[in-house]
Amino acid sequence: MTDIVEIHVTCPSLLDAREIAGKLLDEKLAACCNIPVKEIDSRFWWQGKRQRQDEWRLAVKTRADLFEACAAAIRAAHPYETPAIFGFRVDFVDAATAAWVEEVCRKP
Amino acid sequence: MTDIVEIHVTCPSLLDAREIAGKLLDEKLAACCNIPVKEIDSRFWWQGKRQRQDEWRLAVKTRADLFEACAAAIRAAHPYETPAIFGFRVDFVDAATAAWVEEVCRKP
Amino acid sequence: MTDIVEIHVTCPSLLDAREIAGKLLDEKLAACCNIPVKEIDSRFWWQGKRQRQDEWRLAVKTRADLFEACAAAIRAAHPYETPAIFGFRVDFVDAATAAWVEEVCRKP
Repeated sequence: MTDIVEIHVTCPSLLDAREIAGKLLDEKLAACCNIPVKEIDSRFWWQGKRQRQDEWRLAVKTRADLFEACAAAIRAAHPYETPAIFGFRVDFVDAATAAWVEEVCRKP
Repeated sequence: MTDIVEIHVTCPSLLDAREIAGKLLDEKLAACCNIPVKEIDSRFWWQGKRQRQDEWRLAVKTRADLFEACAAAIRAAHPYETPAIFGFRVDFVDAATAAWVEEVCRKP
Repeated sequence: MTDIVEIHVTCPSLLDAREIAGKLLDEKLAACCNIPVKEIDSRFWWQGKRQRQDEWRLAVKTRADLFEACAAAIRAAHPYETPAIFGFRVDFVDAATAAWVEEVCRKP
Protein backbone atom coordinates (compact mmCIF):
# COMPACT_ATOMS: atom_id res chain seq x y z
CA MET A 1 0.00 0.00 0.00
CA THR A 2 1.16 3.52 -0.70
CA ASP A 3 0.16 7.06 0.27
CA ILE A 4 -0.91 7.85 -3.29
CA VAL A 5 -4.42 7.94 -4.70
CA GLU A 6 -5.66 8.14 -8.27
CA ILE A 7 -8.84 10.19 -8.44
CA HIS A 8 -11.23 9.87 -11.39
CA VAL A 9 -13.89 12.35 -12.38
CA THR A 10 -15.74 12.63 -15.67
CA CYS A 11 -16.38 16.01 -17.28
CA PRO A 12 -18.77 17.17 -20.02
CA SER A 13 -15.95 18.48 -22.24
CA LEU A 14 -12.23 18.17 -22.76
CA LEU A 15 -11.93 21.88 -21.98
CA ASP A 16 -13.61 21.41 -18.59
CA ALA A 17 -11.27 18.53 -17.77
CA ARG A 18 -8.25 20.64 -18.73
CA GLU A 19 -9.41 23.60 -16.66
CA ILE A 20 -10.00 21.47 -13.57
CA ALA A 21 -6.60 19.83 -14.07
CA GLY A 22 -5.00 23.26 -14.28
CA LYS A 23 -6.60 24.41 -11.05
CA LEU A 24 -5.54 21.28 -9.15
CA LEU A 25 -1.98 21.69 -10.36
CA ASP A 26 -1.97 25.42 -9.57
CA GLU A 27 -2.97 24.65 -5.99
CA LYS A 28 -0.48 21.76 -5.76
CA LEU A 29 -3.38 19.42 -5.10
CA ALA A 30 -2.06 17.08 -7.79
CA ALA A 31 1.29 15.76 -8.95
CA CYS A 32 -0.06 14.91 -12.38
CA CYS A 33 -3.31 14.89 -14.31
CA ASN A 34 -4.11 12.72 -17.32
CA ILE A 35 -6.98 13.20 -19.75
CA PRO A 36 -7.55 10.83 -22.64
CA VAL A 37 -8.35 13.30 -25.42
CA LYS A 38 -10.97 11.08 -27.01
CA GLU A 39 -14.41 11.01 -25.42
CA ILE A 40 -16.00 8.18 -23.47
CA ASP A 41 -19.53 6.94 -24.06
CA SER A 42 -21.14 7.30 -20.64
CA ARG A 43 -24.43 5.59 -19.75
CA PHE A 44 -25.97 5.84 -16.32
CA TRP A 45 -29.04 6.11 -14.13
CA TRP A 46 -29.79 9.66 -13.03
CA GLN A 47 -32.96 10.99 -11.42
CA GLY A 48 -34.86 7.81 -12.28
CA LYS A 49 -33.95 7.80 -15.96
CA ARG A 50 -31.39 6.16 -18.21
CA GLN A 51 -29.06 8.80 -19.61
CA ARG A 52 -26.32 8.83 -22.25
CA GLN A 53 -23.64 11.46 -22.60
CA ASP A 54 -20.22 11.98 -24.09
CA GLU A 55 -17.72 12.69 -21.34
CA TRP A 56 -14.00 13.07 -20.79
CA ARG A 57 -12.27 11.47 -17.83
CA LEU A 58 -9.73 13.30 -15.76
CA ALA A 59 -7.36 11.11 -13.71
CA VAL A 60 -5.43 12.82 -10.91
CA LYS A 61 -2.46 11.44 -9.01
CA THR A 62 -2.08 12.95 -5.58
CA ARG A 63 -1.35 12.15 -1.96
CA ALA A 64 -4.16 10.16 -0.30
CA ASP A 65 -4.39 12.67 2.55
CA LEU A 66 -5.31 15.30 -0.04
CA PHE A 67 -8.37 13.40 -1.29
CA GLU A 68 -10.90 15.60 0.50
CA ALA A 69 -9.20 18.87 -0.47
CA CYS A 70 -8.87 17.67 -4.04
CA ALA A 71 -12.53 16.57 -4.20
CA ALA A 72 -13.62 19.95 -2.82
CA ALA A 73 -11.56 21.78 -5.46
CA ILE A 74 -13.04 19.55 -8.19
CA ARG A 75 -16.59 20.27 -6.98
CA ALA A 76 -15.88 24.01 -6.92
CA ALA A 77 -14.56 24.00 -10.50
CA HIS A 78 -16.87 21.39 -12.04
CA PRO A 79 -19.95 22.29 -14.11
CA TYR A 80 -22.02 19.40 -12.67
CA GLU A 81 -23.95 19.90 -9.45
CA THR A 82 -22.76 16.50 -8.21
CA PRO A 83 -19.69 15.32 -10.08
CA ALA A 84 -18.93 11.65 -9.40
CA ILE A 85 -15.50 11.55 -7.77
CA PHE A 86 -13.85 8.18 -7.16
CA GLY A 87 -10.44 7.51 -5.57
CA PHE A 88 -8.37 4.36 -6.06
CA ARG A 89 -5.45 3.85 -3.74
CA VAL A 90 -2.20 2.96 -5.46
CA ASP A 91 -0.96 -0.33 -3.99
CA PHE A 92 2.51 -0.51 -5.53
CA VAL A 93 4.89 2.19 -6.70
CA ASP A 94 8.57 2.56 -7.38
CA ALA A 95 10.53 4.62 -4.83
CA ALA A 96 11.40 7.49 -7.17
CA THR A 97 7.78 8.04 -8.18
CA ALA A 98 6.59 7.90 -4.57
CA ALA A 99 9.16 10.54 -3.63
CA TRP A 100 8.08 12.75 -6.55
CA VAL A 101 4.39 12.67 -5.58
CA GLU A 102 5.29 13.36 -1.95
CA GLU A 103 7.49 16.29 -2.92
CA VAL A 104 5.35 18.14 -5.43
CA CYS A 105 1.99 18.00 -3.62
CA ARG A 106 1.34 20.49 -0.85
CA LYS A 107 0.84 19.39 2.72
CA PRO A 108 -2.79 18.75 3.76
CA MET B 1 -12.74 1.87 1.70
CA THR B 2 -16.18 2.03 0.11
CA ASP B 3 -18.88 -0.41 -0.98
CA ILE B 4 -18.33 0.48 -4.64
CA VAL B 5 -16.40 -1.49 -7.24
CA GLU B 6 -15.27 -0.55 -10.73
CA ILE B 7 -15.41 -3.57 -13.01
CA HIS B 8 -13.38 -3.69 -16.22
CA VAL B 9 -14.00 -6.01 -19.14
CA THR B 10 -12.67 -5.72 -22.67
CA CYS B 11 -14.92 -6.42 -25.66
CA PRO B 12 -14.19 -7.14 -29.34
CA SER B 13 -16.24 -4.15 -30.55
CA LEU B 14 -17.71 -0.89 -29.35
CA LEU B 15 -21.14 -2.29 -30.16
CA ASP B 16 -20.59 -5.30 -27.88
CA ALA B 17 -19.46 -3.01 -25.07
CA ARG B 18 -22.54 -0.82 -25.52
CA GLU B 19 -24.89 -3.82 -25.55
CA ILE B 20 -23.41 -5.28 -22.38
CA ALA B 21 -23.59 -1.86 -20.72
CA GLY B 22 -27.25 -1.60 -21.70
CA LYS B 23 -28.06 -4.99 -20.20
CA LEU B 24 -26.30 -4.20 -16.92
CA LEU B 25 -28.17 -0.91 -16.64
CA ASP B 26 -31.49 -2.55 -17.56
CA GLU B 27 -31.03 -5.03 -14.72
CA LYS B 28 -29.87 -2.31 -12.32
CA LEU B 29 -26.57 -4.14 -11.95
CA ALA B 30 -24.70 -0.90 -12.63
CA ALA B 31 -25.01 2.75 -11.67
CA CYS B 32 -22.96 3.87 -14.66
CA CYS B 33 -20.97 2.42 -17.52
CA ASN B 34 -18.15 4.13 -19.38
CA ILE B 35 -16.66 3.09 -22.70
CA PRO B 36 -13.80 5.00 -24.30
CA VAL B 37 -14.96 5.11 -27.91
CA LYS B 38 -11.46 4.69 -29.34
CA GLU B 39 -10.04 1.17 -29.39
CA ILE B 40 -7.23 -0.22 -27.26
CA ASP B 41 -4.34 -2.22 -28.63
CA SER B 42 -4.52 -5.46 -26.65
CA ARG B 43 -1.63 -7.93 -26.52
CA PHE B 44 -1.75 -11.09 -24.46
CA TRP B 45 -0.91 -14.75 -24.04
CA TRP B 46 -3.77 -17.07 -24.94
CA GLN B 47 -3.66 -20.83 -25.48
CA GLY B 48 0.13 -20.81 -25.59
CA LYS B 49 0.41 -18.07 -28.23
CA ARG B 50 1.00 -14.32 -28.32
CA GLN B 51 -2.11 -12.62 -29.64
CA ARG B 52 -2.95 -9.07 -30.69
CA GLN B 53 -6.42 -7.65 -31.02
CA ASP B 54 -8.28 -4.35 -31.05
CA GLU B 55 -10.63 -4.17 -28.10
CA TRP B 56 -12.90 -1.70 -26.33
CA ARG B 57 -12.97 -1.47 -22.57
CA LEU B 58 -16.17 -1.25 -20.62
CA ALA B 59 -15.89 0.16 -17.07
CA VAL B 60 -18.84 -0.44 -14.74
CA LYS B 61 -19.49 1.27 -11.41
CA THR B 62 -21.64 -0.80 -9.11
CA ARG B 63 -22.01 -1.96 -5.53
CA ALA B 64 -19.28 -4.41 -4.48
CA ASP B 65 -21.85 -6.96 -3.32
CA LEU B 66 -23.13 -7.11 -6.90
CA PHE B 67 -19.77 -8.15 -8.35
CA GLU B 68 -20.75 -11.81 -8.83
CA ALA B 69 -24.16 -11.00 -10.30
CA CYS B 70 -22.61 -8.41 -12.58
CA ALA B 71 -19.85 -10.79 -13.71
CA ALA B 72 -22.46 -13.49 -14.45
CA ALA B 73 -24.49 -11.03 -16.54
CA ILE B 74 -21.34 -9.97 -18.42
CA ARG B 75 -20.44 -13.61 -19.16
CA ALA B 76 -23.99 -14.30 -20.40
CA ALA B 77 -23.91 -11.30 -22.77
CA HIS B 78 -20.27 -11.39 -23.87
CA PRO B 79 -19.12 -12.93 -27.17
CA TYR B 80 -15.92 -14.38 -25.62
CA GLU B 81 -16.04 -17.80 -23.99
CA THR B 82 -13.99 -16.48 -21.07
CA PRO B 83 -14.13 -12.69 -20.84
CA ALA B 84 -11.50 -11.31 -18.45
CA ILE B 85 -13.42 -9.53 -15.70
CA PHE B 86 -11.49 -7.50 -13.13
CA GLY B 87 -12.90 -5.53 -10.21
CA PHE B 88 -11.17 -2.65 -8.44
CA ARG B 89 -12.62 -1.50 -5.17
CA VAL B 90 -13.12 2.24 -4.87
CA ASP B 91 -11.23 3.44 -1.78
CA PHE B 92 -12.48 7.03 -1.56
CA VAL B 93 -15.71 8.64 -2.69
CA ASP B 94 -17.71 11.74 -1.90
CA ALA B 95 -20.92 11.18 0.07
CA ALA B 96 -23.32 12.23 -2.69
CA THR B 97 -21.80 9.82 -5.19
CA ALA B 98 -21.81 6.95 -2.67
CA ALA B 99 -25.50 7.58 -1.99
CA TRP B 100 -26.27 7.65 -5.71
CA VAL B 101 -24.58 4.27 -6.38
CA GLU B 102 -26.30 2.75 -3.35
CA GLU B 103 -29.67 4.04 -4.49
CA VAL B 104 -29.71 3.17 -8.18
CA CYS B 105 -28.28 -0.37 -8.00
CA ARG B 106 -30.62 -3.18 -7.06
CA LYS B 107 -30.14 -5.17 -3.89
CA PRO B 108 -28.04 -8.35 -4.24
CA MET C 1 -8.43 -9.49 -2.84
CA THR C 2 -6.55 -11.32 -5.59
CA ASP C 3 -2.94 -12.02 -6.54
CA ILE C 4 -3.24 -9.87 -9.65
CA VAL C 5 -2.01 -6.33 -10.17
CA GLU C 6 -2.68 -3.83 -12.95
CA ILE C 7 0.41 -1.72 -13.57
CA HIS C 8 0.14 1.65 -15.32
CA VAL C 9 2.98 3.51 -16.96
CA THR C 10 2.78 6.38 -19.42
CA CYS C 11 5.04 6.52 -22.46
CA PRO C 12 6.01 9.32 -24.87
CA SER C 13 4.74 7.45 -27.93
CA LEU C 14 2.45 4.60 -28.92
CA LEU C 15 5.48 2.83 -30.36
CA ASP C 16 7.32 2.99 -27.02
CA ALA C 17 4.27 1.59 -25.24
CA ARG C 18 4.03 -1.26 -27.77
CA GLU C 19 7.72 -2.11 -27.47
CA ILE C 20 7.61 -2.22 -23.67
CA ALA C 21 4.46 -4.36 -23.85
CA GLY C 22 6.24 -6.75 -26.21
CA LYS C 23 9.22 -7.11 -23.90
CA LEU C 24 7.05 -7.79 -20.85
CA LEU C 25 5.11 -10.45 -22.76
CA ASP C 26 8.33 -11.98 -24.16
CA GLU C 27 9.65 -12.38 -20.64
CA LYS C 28 6.30 -13.68 -19.35
CA LEU C 29 6.17 -10.75 -16.96
CA ALA C 30 2.63 -9.97 -18.13
CA ALA C 31 -0.51 -11.91 -19.01
CA CYS C 32 -1.86 -9.03 -21.07
CA CYS C 33 -1.06 -5.46 -21.99
CA ASN C 34 -3.55 -2.81 -23.09
CA ILE C 35 -2.74 0.48 -24.76
CA PRO C 36 -5.46 2.96 -25.70
CA VAL C 37 -4.28 4.00 -29.17
CA LYS C 38 -5.35 7.63 -28.72
CA GLU C 39 -3.07 9.88 -26.72
CA ILE C 40 -3.67 11.32 -23.29
CA ASP C 41 -3.14 14.97 -22.40
CA SER C 42 -0.70 14.78 -19.49
CA ARG C 43 -0.04 17.74 -17.19
CA PHE C 44 2.29 17.54 -14.24
CA TRP C 45 4.89 19.13 -12.00
CA TRP C 46 8.44 18.16 -12.92
CA GLN C 47 11.67 19.75 -11.73
CA GLY C 48 9.81 22.72 -10.31
CA LYS C 49 7.89 23.51 -13.48
CA ARG C 50 4.44 22.83 -14.90
CA GLN C 51 4.76 20.58 -17.93
CA ARG C 52 2.38 19.36 -20.62
CA GLN C 53 2.95 16.40 -22.88
CA ASP C 54 1.08 13.93 -25.05
CA GLU C 55 1.50 10.44 -23.68
CA TRP C 56 0.18 6.92 -24.17
CA ARG C 57 -0.71 4.73 -21.23
CA LEU C 58 0.29 1.10 -21.03
CA ALA C 59 -1.74 -1.06 -18.63
CA VAL C 60 -0.24 -4.42 -17.67
CA LYS C 61 -2.01 -7.30 -15.96
CA THR C 62 0.36 -9.56 -14.07
CA ARG C 63 0.82 -11.44 -10.82
CA ALA C 64 1.33 -9.12 -7.85
CA ASP C 65 4.54 -10.93 -6.86
CA LEU C 66 6.00 -9.90 -10.22
CA PHE C 67 5.51 -6.16 -9.60
CA GLU C 68 9.19 -5.48 -8.86
CA ALA C 69 10.48 -7.59 -11.76
CA CYS C 70 7.96 -5.98 -14.08
CA ALA C 71 8.84 -2.45 -12.89
CA ALA C 72 12.55 -3.19 -13.40
CA ALA C 73 11.88 -4.41 -16.96
CA ILE C 74 9.80 -1.28 -17.67
CA ARG C 75 12.58 0.99 -16.37
CA ALA C 76 15.16 -0.84 -18.52
CA ALA C 77 13.05 -0.44 -21.69
CA HIS C 78 11.57 3.00 -21.06
CA PRO C 79 12.94 6.20 -22.64
CA TYR C 80 12.30 8.29 -19.49
CA GLU C 81 14.92 8.39 -16.77
CA THR C 82 12.20 7.96 -14.12
CA PRO C 83 9.03 6.50 -15.58
CA ALA C 84 6.10 6.78 -13.17
CA ILE C 85 5.00 3.19 -12.45
CA PHE C 86 1.82 2.64 -10.42
CA GLY C 87 0.28 -0.70 -9.45
CA PHE C 88 -3.37 -1.24 -8.54
CA ARG C 89 -4.27 -4.55 -6.93
CA VAL C 90 -7.25 -6.29 -8.48
CA ASP C 91 -9.80 -6.90 -5.72
CA PHE C 92 -12.30 -9.13 -7.56
CA VAL C 93 -11.84 -11.52 -10.45
CA ASP C 94 -13.65 -14.50 -11.93
CA ALA C 95 -11.98 -17.87 -11.37
CA ALA C 96 -11.14 -18.55 -15.01
CA THR C 97 -9.34 -15.23 -15.42
CA ALA C 98 -7.41 -15.71 -12.16
CA ALA C 99 -6.26 -19.15 -13.37
CA TRP C 100 -5.21 -17.71 -16.74
CA VAL C 101 -3.05 -14.95 -15.17
CA GLU C 102 -1.51 -17.46 -12.77
CA GLU C 103 -0.72 -19.87 -15.60
CA VAL C 104 0.76 -17.59 -18.23
CA CYS C 105 3.04 -15.47 -16.03
CA ARG C 106 6.39 -16.87 -15.02
CA LYS C 107 7.23 -17.60 -11.40
CA PRO C 108 8.94 -14.74 -9.51
